[in-house]
Formats: sequence, C-alpha cells, structure tokens
Amino acid sequence: MTLINSTPRKDGFRMPGEFEPHAGCWMLWPERPDNWRLGAKPAQRAFATTAAAIAQFEPVTMGVSRGQFLNARQMLPAHVRVVEMSYDDSWIRDCGPTFVINDKGAVRGVDWDFNAWGGIYFPWDQDALVARKVLKIERLDRYKADLVLEGGSIHVDGEGTLLVTEECLLNPNRNPQLTKEKIEETLRECLNVEQIVWLDRGVCLDETSGHIDNLCCFVRPGVVALTWTDDRSDPQHEISLDAYDRLRAATDARGRKFEVHKIHQPEPMTITKEESEGIDAVEGTLPRRAGDRLAGSYINFYTANDGIVMPTFDDPHDGAAIETLQRLFPKRRIVDVPAREILLGGGNIHCITQQQP
Amino acid sequence: MTLINSTPRKDGFRMPGEFEPHAGCWMLWPERPDNWRLGAKPAQRAFATTAAAIAQFEPVTMGVSRGQFLNARQMLPAHVRVVEMSYDDSWIRDCGPTFVINDKGAVRGVDWDFNAWGGIYFPWDQDALVARKVLKIERLDRYKADLVLEGGSIHVDGEGTLLVTEECLLNPNRNPQLTKEKIEETLRECLNVEQIVWLDRGVCLDETSGHIDNLCCFVRPGVVALTWTDDRSDPQHEISLDAYDRLRAATDARGRKFEVHKIHQPEPMTITKEESEGIDAVEGTLPRRAGDRLAGSYINFYTANDGIVMPTFDDPHDGAAIETLQRLFPKRRIVDVPAREILLGGGNIHCITQQQP
Repeated sequence: MTLINSTPRKDGFRMPGEFEPHAGCWMLWPERPDNWRLGAKPAQRAFATTAAAIAQFEPVTMGVSRGQFLNARQMLPAHVRVVEMSYDDSWIRDCGPTFVINDKGAVRGVDWDFNAWGGIYFPWDQDALVARKVLKIERLDRYKADLVLEGGSIHVDGEGTLLVTEECLLNPNRNPQLTKEKIEETLRECLNVEQIVWLDRGVCLDETSGHIDNLCCFVRPGVVALTWTDDRSDPQHEISLDAYDRLRAATDARGRKFEVHKIHQPEPMTITKEESEGIDAVEGTLPRRAGDRLAGSYINFYTANDGIVMPTFDDPHDGAAIETLQRLFPKRRIVDVPAREILLGGGNIHCITQQQP
Repeated sequence: MTLINSTPRKDGFRMPGEFEPHAGCWMLWPERPDNWRLGAKPAQRAFATTAAAIAQFEPVTMGVSRGQFLNARQMLPAHVRVVEMSYDDSWIRDCGPTFVINDKGAVRGVDWDFNAWGGIYFPWDQDALVARKVLKIERLDRYKADLVLEGGSIHVDGEGTLLVTEECLLNPNRNPQLTKEKIEETLRECLNVEQIVWLDRGVCLDETSGHIDNLCCFVRPGVVALTWTDDRSDPQHEISLDAYDRLRAATDARGRKFEVHKIHQPEPMTITKEESEGIDAVEGTLPRRAGDRLAGSYINFYTANDGIVMPTFDDPHDGAAIETLQRLFPKRRIVDVPAREILLGGGNIHCITQQQP
C-alpha cells in the first residue's frame, strides 16, 4: 500500500496479457451529461449490462460517485461490488492503474500521469486520482510512472511484447518533452517488455489519438486481431492495411512472426441529431455533432476469465465478428453487448473495463 | 458481500469485545463546518494524531470525501490507508458497521438504521450509507438490522453480556414503536448476547442521549471502567453513583459479579466564546453556544491491539486516568491524545473509531 521508488522491471514485475487469469474487473459508472446523452441513462443501462456480462466470469467492482451510489446499486446485479469513487468520466481502462504481477503471484499497480487524452475533456483532476484510489482499496503497492499514458494505448502479450501506435504515444499532446527513446525506456521499465511494436495510426477519427485497443489486440502470444475494412474508399482501409503490413514484418520478443486475424469493422456509423441533442454542449468538452463518424470496432472487447464480452452494433458484420472471436477463443464463451450507447461516449467495452490479475 | 436474510445469532456469529484482536480500525475525516470550528482544521489535526496513534498498533483506514481527499492524504502518515467515502459527519462508531465473528474467524457486519442520534443533525443520508460502503470495500457480508442504533450505545464483553443505557436505547427519538422486550430481542439476535445490563443515564448533557461509551466500558469480561466524580454537587455524581449501584447489583452472562473501576472525570469544561464563533450556526444542527458544558470523560478511549489510545484534556485528572488505564491494561501501551477539539464536536476518541476484528 505504499508508493514504491523503483520500477516493476527492477523488482521482477510484468504486465500480464489480458488473457491471463483475473482476480476481477474494475469499472466506473457513467454520469457526466456533457459526454453521455440524456443524463447518461442509456449509457448506464449499457454499462450495467456489460457489468452483468463480465460478472458471469469474474468479480466486478463498480466505482460510483456519491450522487449515483444508490441508483447504481439499484441498477446493478447484487453480486457486483459497488464502492464510492469520484471521477470525471468513466474510462477506467485509461485512468485506472495498470496492474503488474511477479512470479510469486504478488500484484502491484502502475499509476500513470493522466491528462484526459491530450486535454480534450476538462477537468480531469478526479480521473487522475482513480488509480491510487483503486490500489488503496485493494491494499496494493503503487509505482508512479513519470509518463502521460492511458491503459487503452498499450497491449502486451505478457511475454515481453508491447503493441502501441505512434499517433498516440508520440503525440505532442501527451509527452512533448520526451523523445521516442525515452518513452520506450519508460515503457520497458513499467511494463517489463523487451520488444515494442509500433503501428502508425489508430482507428479513423478515434478521439483518443488512436488508442491501440480499438485497432489491434493480442489473442494470445504470437496471435493478434486487427480491425479491418474491405472498402478501399474508407480511410480506415489504409490505416488497417498499414498496420497489417507492419505486423507481418515484425517479430515479437520471443522472435516469433505474428499471426494476424482481420475482423471486419461495422459499417461506418454517425451520430444522429437526436443523439447529439441529448448531450450538454459545454466549453472544454469535445463536441458531439450530428453526422460525426463514430470510431466503431469489434476489437474493443474485454477478455474475461473463460469469456469474451464484446460490442455489437445491430450491424450486418456483427455475426462474422462473433464467429471470428469464437474461433480465436475456442475455450471462452462469447457474450455480446449492444454497445452503441457506449460508443457514443467515445469508446467501447475495453475502454470501460480494467482487469485485475 | 451479500445482504444476508438471517441474524448473526442464528448463523453462529457474535460481536467480540473491543479488547479482542483487531484486523484494523476505521475512521472518517472531520469536515462539516456547522459542527467543527474553523473549517474543521483543528479537529483534522486531532483526528490525524489519533489515526497516527492507533496506526502504531494496527492498520488504520480513513474514509475521506472527494473534496478533502488530497488534504487528508497529506495530513496523515503514509501507512494510514485513505479511501474515498462521503459522510455527513465523522462518527464511524455510530454510523459504521458493527462487526461480528464466528469461531472459524469469518467476519460479517451488522448495518443498523441510523437517524443521527434522534434526528439532531440534518441531513444524515450519507452517514446512513457508511456501514454498507465499508463492508463492500472489505468484501464482507452484511446483516441489515431493523433497529435505529449507534455503535456508541453498546458495549459487549464478547461472552454474552451487553451494557446499554435506558436513556439512549429506550429514547422515543430512536425506536418509539418498539417495546423494551422487542429491542432486547433484536439486540440478542444481532450481537448474540444473553444478558443485557441496563444502566439509567449516560454522561451529563451528552448530546447522544447518553451513549454507554462515554460512561462505562469493558476492560475485559467481568471488569468494567466507569466515569466518576467525587463532587456531589455535580449532576454527574448521581448518574455515576446510580450506574455503580446497578453494576454492583448485576451479574453478567456467565453469572459473574462485576469488578467496577472508577475513573474520575476531568473538571467540567465549557465551550469558549472563541470556539463557538468558529462554528457555522445553521438550522438543523445542534447549536454550540459559549458556556455550554462539554461531556468530557476518559472512558471514551479506544482499545487497540497492544495499545490504549485515550483522550486527555490538559486537566489535573489526566495523570490519574492514565495511571488507572495502565493498571487495568498492564500489557497495553497507553498513548494519550489531546482531545478537546474532538470533544467540541460532541464525542471523543471511541466515537470516531470502529474496530474491525
């Protein structure tokens, strides 16, 4: 429960792959009316459905503000643990701790600097405290990383390989004072990785500056899934093709070539006028205009113990995505959650969850 | 972590004596300016001193509101765990859970109804949620008791005996619809006790309607300490004498007579004009007027693992109280905390702590 003046690498801790065993999953309750339409009521239902889906596979803890405590308690299944926590928004993938483990099963947390995805949502003072609050509740020791980073911008295979995008990690809205080499050094120390695979850009118009977790993820060591489109006129085609080429040319920390599985994206979706009108338009927050394209992707799923909780969009590609994930994770049960209301807030199921090994 | 539809007695759980081993201690950070003078800053220093004193003997967790989170973190020793929690005031003895244990070392909590000591401090909606929030954080199962009760109004010996006052438990401001017999039945079920010893009144002008924990407490089974005054003109004399007589006439659940140790109270203290002027005077809160007598007592101490953390008042009786407690607890180290700032808020060290077995 103390702040450790060292690094996970020095102490023999590593970030495990998401597909490794979990003690549970953390989430935060959606609330802010300048990001979630209609007082976040539709999003709260989607989050509750997601929590219930994950809770089939592992314990779920929901951080809930003072004002929403009783409502969340009411809307969530009784076996979801509700703890009080303040936040600015509900993306615990990004503001929560990155858990690391050692060979003896000890667990610690990395607390990154957080600046709300390059400062696009003001304020972020409460989000910046979430990691340490989670670690205090779980009585886990904490490393403070001197790097602005969100959990959604990293994926590891647990065997020394890290996947990131240049669009995000080298973006001047995060760590303009640091060179690529210095950023790599911090990532190696904090996650205990050897090989960093740099893709170029994230999903088209993803407001996170291209988080990896909407573009590409590990199925297991040596095997990744990549969002894809066959439509060459869609700007996403070029992005996914470039990522595919880089992945095929790369090797992981163990010297393996990657097996890359494409998952065709949903049809391009845009915000409707009705959806836009349900959101407070206030200064300091990214506008949600009618007609804006949403960064839809099936890659933004959560890997639970014995299960996959994935977003669907009432889209013709839903079925193929479900089938592919079932094939890639033959021992896990696939649960799909209608996720448009989460996507409207700027992310998806992976973004609103944080596994605790 | 679920709500249990049974009672501790039926399930083989009992409330242990405070002198039995603890896993730790819970506290809440003082804040409300209509009870604590000067924005609660002097009280916060006294609470921090108390937390540091207890943390010498056992882990301490401090519940802190969103607004005070960073300040409390700064004012408290690093090894005190800080978790976010809302509250109306900071008396976790009264609004927190009463922990119960079984022979196998399992721990659960009783969540009483809470109405702010008979409705004298408005509002109390957040205090009423504290017990369940604590139990969720600790992942402990919860019994909901259908009785308005504060933890400060009960003391047990862990062997079947309960000490209470009629002034508090039979007060129409708590459970006017219940007979004494019905109240006793609920206490037997929730605490797993056989013998309930009823004293008459609590300490003179104690705003809690006479909580037992300011008047009399168990040192160990068969042995109690009682606040006392030799001054026959002090209304406290008659109260303490009556309690003494009742205790000497009573037997405990094992048929033992009580050994009663008197601890002379501090000299009567009153609120100064300066102290009164530092407190917001708002409707719904008990006024703190200059000249009002404070319910000072040395009995309101906390029994920690291997230690006693007790209040002192820069009073001529301090030394004798310290000596008596050291004699009564020969194996525990006595730590005294200057506690006038806590007393000004209406209670003392026992009232602001809650042991977790």
